[in-house]
Amino acid sequence: MSMNLQEKTWVQVEEYLKSNKHIIVPVGSTEQHGPTGLIGIDYLSSWEIAKAVGEKTKTMVAPPLCFGMAVHHMAFPGTISFSPITYIQVITEIIQSLGKHGFSKFTFINGHGGNIAPLTSAFCQAKQDKETFDIKLFNWWHLPEVTAYESKVFGNENGFHATCGEISVTMYTHPEAYQEIPAMSFQPTKDRPHWPMAPKEFREAFPDGRMGSNPSLCTPEHGKMLFNLAVDSICQKLE
Amino acid sequence: MSMNLQEKTWVQVEEYLKSNKHIIVPVGSTEQHGPTGLIGIDYLSSWEIAKAVGEKTKTMVAPPLCFGMAVHHMAFPGTISFSPITYIQVITEIIQSLGKHGFSKFTFINGHGGNIAPLTSAFCQAKQDKETFDIKLFNWWHLPEVTAYESKVFGNENGFHATCGEISVTMYTHPEAYQEIPAMSFQPTKDRPHWPMAPKEFREAFPDGRMGSNPSLCTPEHGKMLFNLAVDSICQKLE
Amino acid sequence: MSMNLQEKTWVQVEEYLKSNKHIIVPVGSTEQHGPTGLIGIDYLSSWEIAKAVGEKTKTMVAPPLCFGMAVHHMAFPGTISFSPITYIQVITEIIQSLGKHGFSKFTFINGHGGNIAPLTSAFCQAKQDKETFDIKLFNWWHLPEVTAYESKVFGNENGFHATCGEISVTMYTHPEAYQEIPAMSFQPTKDRPHWPMAPKEFREAFPDGRMGSNPSLCTPEHGKMLFNLAVDSICQKLE
Amino acid sequence: MSMNLQEKTWVQVEEYLKSNKHIIVPVGSTEQHGPTGLIGIDYLSSWEIAKAVGEKTKTMVAPPLCFGMAVHHMAFPGTISFSPITYIQVITEIIQSLGKHGFSKFTFINGHGGNIAPLTSAFCQAKQDKETFDIKLFNWWHLPEVTAYESKVFGNENGFHATCGEISVTMYTHPEAYQEIPAMSFQPTKDRPHWPMAPKEFREAFPDGRMGSNPSLCTPEHGKMLFNLAVDSICQKLE
Amino acid sequence: MSMNLQEKTWVQVEEYLKSNKHIIVPVGSTEQHGPTGLIGIDYLSSWEIAKAVGEKTKTMVAPPLCFGMAVHHMAFPGTISFSPITYIQVITEIIQSLGKHGFSKFTFINGHGGNIAPLTSAFCQAKQDKETFDIKLFNWWHLPEVTAYESKVFGNENGFHATCGEISVTMYTHPEAYQEIPAMSFQPTKDRPHWPMAPKEFREAFPDGRMGSNPSLCTPEHGKMLFNLAVDSICQKLE
Amino acid sequence: MSMNLQEKTWVQVEEYLKSNKHIIVPVGSTEQHGPTGLIGIDYLSSWEIAKAVGEKTKTMVAPPLCFGMAVHHMAFPGTISFSPITYIQVITEIIQSLGKHGFSKFTFINGHGGNIAPLTSAFCQAKQDKETFDIKLFNWWHLPEVTAYESKVFGNENGFHATCGEISVTMYTHPEAYQEIPAMSFQPTKDRPHWPMAPKEFREAFPDGRMGSNPSLCTPEHGKMLFNLAVDSICQKLE
Repeated sequence: MSMNLQEKTWVQVEEYLKSNKHIIVPVGSTEQHGPTGLIGIDYLSSWEIAKAVGEKTKTMVAPPLCFGMAVHHMAFPGTISFSPITYIQVITEIIQSLGKHGFSKFTFINGHGGNIAPLTSAFCQAKQDKETFDIKLFNWWHLPEVTAYESKVFGNENGFHATCGEISVTMYTHPEAYQEIPAMSFQPTKDRPHWPMAPKEFREAFPDGRMGSNPSLCTPEHGKMLFNLAVDSICQKLE
Repeated sequence: MSMNLQEKTWVQVEEYLKSNKHIIVPVGSTEQHGPTGLIGIDYLSSWEIAKAVGEKTKTMVAPPLCFGMAVHHMAFPGTISFSPITYIQVITEIIQSLGKHGFSKFTFINGHGGNIAPLTSAFCQAKQDKETFDIKLFNWWHLPEVTAYESKVFGNENGFHATCGEISVTMYTHPEAYQEIPAMSFQPTKDRPHWPMAPKEFREAFPDGRMGSNPSLCTPEHGKMLFNLAVDSICQKLE
Repeated sequence: MSMNLQEKTWVQVEEYLKSNKHIIVPVGSTEQHGPTGLIGIDYLSSWEIAKAVGEKTKTMVAPPLCFGMAVHHMAFPGTISFSPITYIQVITEIIQSLGKHGFSKFTFINGHGGNIAPLTSAFCQAKQDKETFDIKLFNWWHLPEVTAYESKVFGNENGFHATCGEISVTMYTHPEAYQEIPAMSFQPTKDRPHWPMAPKEFREAFPDGRMGSNPSLCTPEHGKMLFNLAVDSICQKLE
Repeated sequence: MSMNLQEKTWVQVEEYLKSNKHIIVPVGSTEQHGPTGLIGIDYLSSWEIAKAVGEKTKTMVAPPLCFGMAVHHMAFPGTISFSPITYIQVITEIIQSLGKHGFSKFTFINGHGGNIAPLTSAFCQAKQDKETFDIKLFNWWHLPEVTAYESKVFGNENGFHATCGEISVTMYTHPEAYQEIPAMSFQPTKDRPHWPMAPKEFREAFPDGRMGSNPSLCTPEHGKMLFNLAVDSICQKLE
Repeated sequence: MSMNLQEKTWVQVEEYLKSNKHIIVPVGSTEQHGPTGLIGIDYLSSWEIAKAVGEKTKTMVAPPLCFGMAVHHMAFPGTISFSPITYIQVITEIIQSLGKHGFSKFTFINGHGGNIAPLTSAFCQAKQDKETFDIKLFNWWHLPEVTAYESKVFGNENGFHATCGEISVTMYTHPEAYQEIPAMSFQPTKDRPHWPMAPKEFREAFPDGRMGSNPSLCTPEHGKMLFNLAVDSICQKLE
Repeated sequence: MSMNLQEKTWVQVEEYLKSNKHIIVPVGSTEQHGPTGLIGIDYLSSWEIAKAVGEKTKTMVAPPLCFGMAVHHMAFPGTISFSPITYIQVITEIIQSLGKHGFSKFTFINGHGGNIAPLTSAFCQAKQDKETFDIKLFNWWHLPEVTAYESKVFGNENGFHATCGEISVTMYTHPEAYQEIPAMSFQPTKDRPHWPMAPKEFREAFPDGRMGSNPSLCTPEHGKMLFNLAVDSICQKLE
């Protein structure tokens, strides 16, 4: 049964809140993922994982925040980014809204590295306002089960952005979207760069948007494995 | 063929921008829609309409902004709202991000009345920053073709919130979500209230969240008609 | 007897508040009104109407906020505009200040279309902070009695900005100011434009600042009629 | 001839700007002025002085900003106050708006001590944005000619708030407003307090709102003298 | 015994708060002080004075806020400035943090004129939030004992910025820093300018950063005298 | 020779900038560090390390920002914290100020974990504004040379807050401050907690402020070793 907030009525949410104060919030980004990765990877992956975790654990799942803090990808068309301060404000107001209804346990499932700093900042702010909030963050691509699998099958060609792992996950969850993307031959790009990078710097250092990943290794089968590892890992930690 | 930004690569967006500067941005809300309407109606309806308009007119469609300015619905659990100032900031930054890539024509398809004021404010701000931006707003439920049909089939039982029209549209686009919602007998509620209303006032005036609508008149068939009328009307106006 | 807050002492306000929690706040704009309309029309008209309504209904009237949200008129010299976010903040703080003294019923009398969106946004914010506030907005030029009269005497030459109606009202209330303005022959301008417009766009579309109005039809006599219709209409609605 | 911006057309302002870049901006406050002083004294006095200076020096005069930074008077009903940050923002946007039209010399005539700090802050901000702006501030009650006269006729009963000087000036400019105010016998209040004061502290220290002033000494004749001294002093300094 | 907060443990602060709610906060600036004055003069002087006052009066002293509102000095390299709004926010949050622990009496010792306006604004804000806060500001260079001494020994060559007084004080407190500064012959610069000044204006009017001061008169002996006068004067006023 | 900005004149900074665009900015926090650690540890340690790195590499060092983002420590008296948004704004304005003078390479030396998220956010913002800025962050306690030494000498009694390492460093740099702190016997506290924590939660989980550290192992000798390791490690990385 779907646990998606957007597919419920307020009466059902009121009922749910009588016995459960927990809600999952999927956050990601709309940003370039190299020449063969979808622009929506970060929110599509976290949203799909969130929905699966919600169903398995019978936890309500909020609609996704599709946009994140991605200023460093702004030299690639299609990227949409909030400034850090706006992103902190947005996350804070989402938590406050849900908190007013009685939700007090928040699990953020995140698909984008650039969100971690402003998410953490927003959580500090929200916790200061309401001491009893319990706020957890899962960056799915950082889960040990996920990185272990990626390491095994992609080795050091997984890369740091537009990784084999995240592309594979969305090949599994959104196969139709990959039919339109032409095949390309790949050349691994440079090593991990210094940080932070400005938009132009990023594009100069990584001209096609990938950071050391070899997308030709991606398959929906790997994606399925990674998706299930992420879902199971988060479910386990939530129990 | 899907025209969804999130299912494209940046290379495809760069190609698109060579001949087309137009992007559609679906905006809505996550808020109560009475005892039988989905909490996600406002963004689900505008997103589905946006995707159909995008495919028909070969126009790129951004991911949805699922949250809007819905403070007056905050007394009903499940509602998530940005403050007006945050919403203006969010919309402004989405326009600015897309503008940096060369998009200059923006069509917002909106599913929530409370968004109109801050959207208009944000557009003024964005236009001041960049004079050449062409920004249009379609509130799909205000389209004359839509209101004419609603008037004909629902009469004055369409209501002003959680209307028969918007519930019907999502019964058509998200039939699976309505299977879980128990049937109820309905009593029309009061007339349109003074404005603005505070959360508690709203709930006192409209205890189940509907404003004068009779959801027992909703059908997916009406939804299909309304959906198509909205899509065709917007397509026509965009040409 | 004057009901103007600025002409009272705090002792008189304290006395007033014992039996009356209602205050009228006139808001407008300082912006171009074509080659023959005063720059101050929007706040002068709403202020005069507010003072008359205050006297008739024995309601306290705040000093006017002379500046509004008028970014689209900024290509014409003399216009002063707040950004939308600042305007929302300003209105919110005026309401909060008055609310601290015990005022709880607020009637805004507005003379400028561009203010409507941010005013509404500010009211939502203020109502969220204090549920019991009762906030009403009258856009005097939208009152049915006013538009009916304008329609009858000016027809479609009333226009959409620098209208015959608002110029006539200030010819009645501020006759001395019109003595300095040279007579001109008028050519009706274009139809109502798309919205929102940027400053330069506005001036290109409407080179002399009028939107389809024919100011040669304006007279102080029409102004007197319109003024009285607006005052009476608002007084009636407030009872 | 009136030099008031609000009584001009944009065509007249455009003409004026060909030879003159100077504008006067009257600022004040809406706040308690003791049991016999008008709530509007601070903006009424600065506005009247500004209009007279404008006529004498043929300088354009903006509409008044009727509200200022008056948090310390908030324990007396009728006071309306902006927060310091909002006031700074408001002043900055007024300067920026006028600057866009080509005004580059700004003379602020101020009637309220609490505005000085945020005005100065805003000027610093505006000057940083546009180096060539020439911004002057006249606090009319601080002018040496004014303080000398007050000292001579009121001695140490002039006080520090709701002073004999400012009440006298508005008795001269707004005689009709003082007809409604009942006569009272006065007892001088305490000496100048430490600073800053919170609203309640202020009311406890100065229960009727005056700070050491004896309003029974006020006359419209003194007001006329002070008004003329202030106008002449500013005119001289502007030449 | 040192009374510096940074050299205490929280246990010691908790103990202190049982009998004393007073804390001293040194604020200054990092900005040019002419060709021979240290960039840190404003915070170094106020910090040293604060520490001495703290020891003498057994009052806790917070770490210094080394940066202030110094936009007008930005044309000289090395100056670091907050915008006025940010500075107000920073001061407000420092007061709020300390207030949460129970501090209720705040003595700010300030070394920079440009801070006075935003400091005062922040104090108003903080007092509005918490009526019982007692906040005092000492601008050490304005103390009558200090100006009398300066007047006596430096006459009108003390100047208005990079004054003989403040340079002397830091020659006394930081002799090692002055060893590296080459001797120069000085020419007194112009009189006090109009205010506010933009960065470029300031540098044009005062090419070497001094405002009418003759640093060749500075000595550590004068500095010692001034330092002691300032410390004693503040201690006396705090009793 | 000291490389401290505050001990230079603007003439010396102008000279420096002719051949060097690099500046070091020490940042830390004012917050509890357990019953025996100084409240100032985070800024004192990063400042001392920054000064030593500056002297060794002949790089200019800005004054310290003594306050950071430490909301989670606010239940312990003496802690001073900025909100995340204010901290981001503060850091951004420090970078912008220095950037206006021509500094383009910024090395932040940080002593507080809670600063990392908002620092990173601010760097992203600053890089977006000015692409060519080169901004590096060193969290001295994370340097591999430092953690290796701590691991060797303190093992798992180093802890996560008020660590043996940071206390030892300040015992070395500020021996006088530790003379006033009474000796205590220590009991290791709990393991690393979930994150983020609210102030009360933190104090409940870690009643004396330490997170698993055993301060009885601290010595100035270990501090000297750690200090030198940190300085050398950063110097090496900067070359």
